[in-house]
Amino acid sequence: MTARKIELFVPVITPFASDLSLDTDRFVTNAKALLAAGAHGLAPFGTTSEANSVSVAERMAALEALIGAGISPSQLIPGTGCCAAADTITLSAHATKLGCRGVLMLPPFFYKGVSDEGVFNAYAQVIDAVGPDLRVYLYHIPQMSGVPITLNLIERLLAAYPNAIVGLKDSSGNWENTASVIAAFPQIDTYSASESLIPENVAAGGAGCISASLNVNPKGIRALLDGLSGPDHKALHDQVSAVRKIFESLPLIPAIKAAVAQQWADPEFARVRPPFVDLGPEHADAISEAVRLAGPQTPR
Amino acid sequence: MTARKIELFVPVITPFASDLSLDTDRFVTNAKALLAAGAHGLAPFGTTSEANSVSVAERMAALEALIGAGISPSQLIPGTGCCAAADTITLSAHATKLGCRGVLMLPPFFYKGVSDEGVFNAYAQVIDAVGPDLRVYLYHIPQMSGVPITLNLIERLLAAYPNAIVGLKDSSGNWENTASVIAAFPQIDTYSASESLIPENVAAGGAGCISASLNVNPKGIRALLDGLSGPDHKALHDQVSAVRKIFESLPLIPAIKAAVAQQWADPEFARVRPPFVDLGPEHADAISEAVRLAGPQTPR
Repeated sequence: MTARKIELFVPVITPFASDLSLDTDRFVTNAKALLAAGAHGLAPFGTTSEANSVSVAERMAALEALIGAGISPSQLIPGTGCCAAADTITLSAHATKLGCRGVLMLPPFFYKGVSDEGVFNAYAQVIDAVGPDLRVYLYHIPQMSGVPITLNLIERLLAAYPNAIVGLKDSSGNWENTASVIAAFPQIDTYSASESLIPENVAAGGAGCISASLNVNPKGIRALLDGLSGPDHKALHDQVSAVRKIFESLPLIPAIKAAVAQQWADPEFARVRPPFVDLGPEHADAISEAVRLAGPQTPR
Repeated sequence: MTARKIELFVPVITPFASDLSLDTDRFVTNAKALLAAGAHGLAPFGTTSEANSVSVAERMAALEALIGAGISPSQLIPGTGCCAAADTITLSAHATKLGCRGVLMLPPFFYKGVSDEGVFNAYAQVIDAVGPDLRVYLYHIPQMSGVPITLNLIERLLAAYPNAIVGLKDSSGNWENTASVIAAFPQIDTYSASESLIPENVAAGGAGCISASLNVNPKGIRALLDGLSGPDHKALHDQVSAVRKIFESLPLIPAIKAAVAQQWADPEFARVRPPFVDLGPEHADAISEAVRLAGPQTPR
């Protein structure tokens, strides 16, 4: 357990131009800044990235732009899970061919009440199609997907694909579930979705955090991770929790984008695609407070 | 209200070959048989069609195959709603160009807890992109989508797009909701998702039914619709309810496909894509009973 790397991956926001097309320049510039500010890597096309509002073609082009700008594929875990297996296979094969560290894969999520066997088959179908180089981080976010990644499912997948299944992101917000996954499957990297849980995650043998707030507060969250054993650990935890708490009271994705826009002093970053709506001016003070608490995030 | 056409549209199953590719021949043969058996039209790529497990390219090719086989586009309301607007626009523009009667459009369904304003913007984005020939049937299926089509949303859409919004399918199973939609918006065609509700739907001024069981029991359901004012209406209703009740106790989509396979005496029809699993042999008796109760569905 002591040899496990503890890391922070940012589900980096996807900027959109005024015609709602993907703004590749701002996407790349912001992504590089997040790495410079202390994130170990990026999980582009996660939930916070509005991935599910972004087409397969757009995702592939944007991923290529990140790598083309000099970001190492070893720092990238793009989201690839779609409803239709054909799309998940296309995205996962593309990311694998580019040498990405792995892919963060939602289960197919339209149909609810499906069995573990059915979800196993869905993952197996993709793994078999993409081939032996694929590395899958399972994505448990039942409040959005409606399709949980159960312990039974993980066990089945690891038995069948011990090399392909390498990690899990637990966005359930239920620490007991994360602890169960870490305890039962120490061979995979398990990430929390909240930086507030970093102390518990690391102490239990987890691999770190993939959190929306990393878009706004990468330095603070990195400082907490680096200072876990130091004298300031409580103050560092208070800082990340204070920032996080503001976002938890707002529509999360529009609020994160509004804060990034304020950090860059560039309102273009704030724009969202439907079904989200841009954050209203009534929340400007809360965003300013979050940005103040986060502090400067050089090079922004 | 008396001038409204009352019709039955089948969310026709999508047959898959042993490699899980779309079996176009069986798809077309079965679709034509359903129309011959009494359905007024088809809603291919609905929920029962496993639409969300079928790619954009597959859906377009299969729709073209139906029309190429002589089915009138005026009888077709394909499902086109995806998570990413680009996909919804591609499918909706394609169906519109082919002359389809309209499209059955899910809202974007990954993100939950979104506002009516956000969902309005999502529909508006598609309607604006496809242009004035698009005809939209809104698809309310909150138990799967997690994103309801509220009365407030319908009102806003009708105010902005009085020509584009032409109907709604209510799959909520909540008759009070259907009744509210019919009462509030008599200018659109409102379909129930259960044939058991046909008497209520027609009496209230609705437009009929788009139901999974139409795949198995088109003759019985058509007989109920045609016999609503006749002396046998209770017996006809009992028949459709008895068939439906069997499916309600089973995994719906695998069970519907298993029954269609039995009706055609062709097990190929039974195969499902993940995340569904083929219906187990323990349910064979229930399926036989449903098929017996439905009776012969010539030309099957």
